[in-house]
Amino acid sequence: MGKVVTSEVLRFMTDCFKSVGANAKAAEQQAELLLRADRMGHPSHGLNRLELYINDIIKGACQPNNQPKVLKQSASTAWVDANNVLGATASHFGMDLAIKKARDTGVGWVTVKGSNHNGMAGFWAQKASDQGFIGMAFTNTSPLMAPTRSKKQALGTNPLSVVAPASQGESFYLDMATTAVAVGKIEMQLRKGEPLPHGWAQGPDGKETTDARLAFDTCCLMPLGGGEKTSGYKGFGLAAMVELFCGISSGSNYGHHVRSWSHSGAGGPANLGHCFVAIDPENFAPGFKDRLTESIQHWRQLEPSRLQEIKRKH
Amino acid sequence: MGKVVTSEVLRFMTDCFKSVGANAKAAEQQAELLLRADRMGHPSHGLNRLELYINDIIKGACQPNNQPKVLKQSASTAWVDANNVLGATASHFGMDLAIKKARDTGVGWVTVKGSNHNGMAGFWAQKASDQGFIGMAFTNTSPLMAPTRSKKQALGTNPLSVVAPASQGESFYLDMATTAVAVGKIEMQLRKGEPLPHGWAQGPDGKETTDARLAFDTCCLMPLGGGEKTSGYKGFGLAAMVELFCGISSGSNYGHHVRSWSHSGAGGPANLGHCFVAIDPENFAPGFKDRLTESIQHWRQLEPSRLQEIKRKH
Repeated sequence: MGKVVTSEVLRFMTDCFKSVGANAKAAEQQAELLLRADRMGHPSHGLNRLELYINDIIKGACQPNNQPKVLKQSASTAWVDANNVLGATASHFGMDLAIKKARDTGVGWVTVKGSNHNGMAGFWAQKASDQGFIGMAFTNTSPLMAPTRSKKQALGTNPLSVVAPASQGESFYLDMATTAVAVGKIEMQLRKGEPLPHGWAQGPDGKETTDARLAFDTCCLMPLGGGEKTSGYKGFGLAAMVELFCGISSGSNYGHHVRSWSHSGAGGPANLGHCFVAIDPENFAPGFKDRLTESIQHWRQLEPSRLQEIKRKH
Repeated sequence: MGKVVTSEVLRFMTDCFKSVGANAKAAEQQAELLLRADRMGHPSHGLNRLELYINDIIKGACQPNNQPKVLKQSASTAWVDANNVLGATASHFGMDLAIKKARDTGVGWVTVKGSNHNGMAGFWAQKASDQGFIGMAFTNTSPLMAPTRSKKQALGTNPLSVVAPASQGESFYLDMATTAVAVGKIEMQLRKGEPLPHGWAQGPDGKETTDARLAFDTCCLMPLGGGEKTSGYKGFGLAAMVELFCGISSGSNYGHHVRSWSHSGAGGPANLGHCFVAIDPENFAPGFKDRLTESIQHWRQLEPSRLQEIKRKH
């Protein structure tokens, strides 16, 4: 595989956005978001997605030069209309506002409607963490997940992210879809010619399938936890919680009303909903960062369950 | 099975708490919390647990007549020392404060240290929802869960709850342990003489087991998601997130520092940490309750994946 200098990737993506009419700042922010995902090892949220964003702009489903607007606010909350800008523009606006409010009152809780796909959730939570706050980011997405006992999709992969600063260079970083896995993992099994584990995906008959081809074509994911016996309804509940914070709170499209997943820009504006939260840990017990570091280091050093197998792999 | 009038159960539990020295209000609040769990069909958090609380008081591990105290606060946050009172006393205090702050600023975020077991998490989130807020409740618990790849327990079942009010008599109610299942479910399989599904529990060798007896004796639960292939690390991440909000923020015992699970009152004060959050949905898009109801009703009416099997059961 050829290697490309990251600055060149950034330049390329920025130019792509500019060439379809995005202003320099919007183009740069969206390119930076995608590049970070690639650098963190999440190609599913990187350059790979450029086509999606570009098509949305070309088809007029996204207007990158609009301005997000605060529709309502209180000391600790804000309701924002992203006015259909790129996800990065909307999310910088939303998280900046949450951080500002957290500085004033201890907590900022911002919901955003009228937005577009905003890349990896962890990027936004980390933005708050970089400034000393516990950051949280949520977004709804196109319907891909079948709630427990349902034959069809009704909610997205609805990711949640929590990032928090610790001491000694450590940090807590959680960024997860509330489905068992993302579609990309099914595609990987398909390419490797391997079956899926149980609890990942359903076939068109609504039953669990381990057939990677069938699962990829059906695109009907199971919630975190998998089937009912292994508590998949908890993953369904978490996806619903994310939707409650995003679309249901912000008045964007929500759940089954979100347009289908597509790279073509078809289906009109996405009108996605996001939620951004910042909390100041200094408002609670002193020593937060040290306790977090002590925990992380304890978890990292736990005796492995399968020491020999792990040793063999490395 | 004999039936008992609920008022008599309430009277009995209240008297038990009073007989070991608890004041009337503390006794009544703790009894009400346990009764609600039984009435909602969660006996694991009801009368069944009375012995635990009574023993903690008898052994001096819990002082039911102390007063919780606010140690630090801002417009939207508070840090509380529960002073080792019963979980119900501490949690009413914490959630009342979160609701008060949400009325003023839109959000209240309260962490509590020095507390005891506070029953089912949903009781506390619902307290906020009953007053029109999105309520969230988190608590840490004794270590019972092995993080992905670990042989031993390092975090509790660390539940999270989100409850929100909807229209037409509906409401959203999520209350879940971040482990695949609670210990009680393993006990049920043991009593029925049935093996466990995959992804519930580990044996003493750190490997997954389907042997209910071995699992019950080992008491080493797997996180939501089960094994690594089915994304159990996400459940681990969620349990860690709950600990971040509870013990790590509040400065109570946290993670592996929490005393082992016991019904004997041994091991000294539990010094558990909780987190209570209230958010005013009226601060965002009008129509929150209707969108939530429309979603709930949509989910409820989805075409079942296995219609015939479900029909057969009913």
